[in-house]
Amino acid sequence: MIVVGVGVGPGMLTEEGIRAIRKASVVYGAKRALEIAQEYITCEAKTIKDYKSLHLLPADSVVLSTGDPMFSGLGKFAGEKDTVIPGISSMQAACARTKVNLTNICAITAHGRDFEPAKAELIRELKNGRNIFLLPEEAFGPREVAEILKELEIDAELYTCENLGYPEERIAKGTPDKPPIAETILYGLLVVQKR
Amino acid sequence: MIVVGVGVGPGMLTEEGIRAIRKASVVYGAKRALEIAQEYITCEAKTIKDYKSLHLLPADSVVLSTGDPMFSGLGKFAGEKDTVIPGISSMQAACARTKVNLTNICAITAHGRDFEPAKAELIRELKNGRNIFLLPEEAFGPREVAEILKELEIDAELYTCENLGYPEERIAKGTPDKPPIAETILYGLLVVQKR
Repeated sequence: MIVVGVGVGPGMLTEEGIRAIRKASVVYGAKRALEIAQEYITCEAKTIKDYKSLHLLPADSVVLSTGDPMFSGLGKFAGEKDTVIPGISSMQAACARTKVNLTNICAITAHGRDFEPAKAELIRELKNGRNIFLLPEEAFGPREVAEILKELEIDAELYTCENLGYPEERIAKGTPDKPPIAETILYGLLVVQKR
Repeated sequence: MIVVGVGVGPGMLTEEGIRAIRKASVVYGAKRALEIAQEYITCEAKTIKDYKSLHLLPADSVVLSTGDPMFSGLGKFAGEKDTVIPGISSMQAACARTKVNLTNICAITAHGRDFEPAKAELIRELKNGRNIFLLPEEAFGPREVAEILKELEIDAELYTCENLGYPEERIAKGTPDKPPIAETILYGLLVVQKR
């Protein structure tokens, strides 16, 4: 199979991604990924039901992954013989909007698991002087990160980045004393330390 | 100005990147970036002579940056009113080829400067359990990294990733005892810890 990163929102598909989708015998993806790639799909499109069987798909089938497949995406199901085509991740779109350097940033995922390891990693990386891109959890978002920043006496800007790449895109800026509040569930939180 | 990430090699331009290039009044870029975007340029194309004056360019001019503009690219010259369009970086292409997760990776640049800070960062992040994507320096490449891994007694796979996205693409794999050797100057070194 070929795993194609469709980007975090519309308009981010790459030339090689588009070529792979056009040549596919069948295209699999979640609803949002299929919508992003819609205009280039010329074969049957199916929503993914069994993620663990993805590696059994034939060589010319395409699996769509939002963002970049290797950044919390479906690239983890790719075997040695499969191909992964990179896409624009939420972290890249967030850094493009805020003009934040991608080389000094640390990505942390709190999504869908106990957030204590994420919290420990956040504290360690903040102390290392890194900026953070956090995929937050309901109980571990801007308010909790702001409290940690105050405890560590680190001055920083916080940005909630919602619906990146969509017409409803919304980036809200705040501080540890007045953290931004996201209006939707799926967003990224960018923490930029002041130096 | 609009800073467009053209990707690390051909075929990686995004739909929004292509749209911006087609609509531009003038396109600036280094030779390699202009070559990658060539088929979409309909206006005058100029090589960049004075990087520090880039921010003076008019709003509809496009500046091409190889890889992603915010990943050691020309995004650093973008002001608040400028637009940055993300592109596929060398680190993403390297991780797609080797199927390495992008969320546990740390990017370190040794390029064009004293490599001691990069070395200290490398050691710290290896101890933190992170994988590394290094943009190496002549005196700080696979051999030097392999020595550090042996001193720290860390078992890892090393990959030199050259000419990513080009027909001449070459990925060589090695170990701390037998590090891979790059055949060209411009490459990325991926260090993947064994767990």
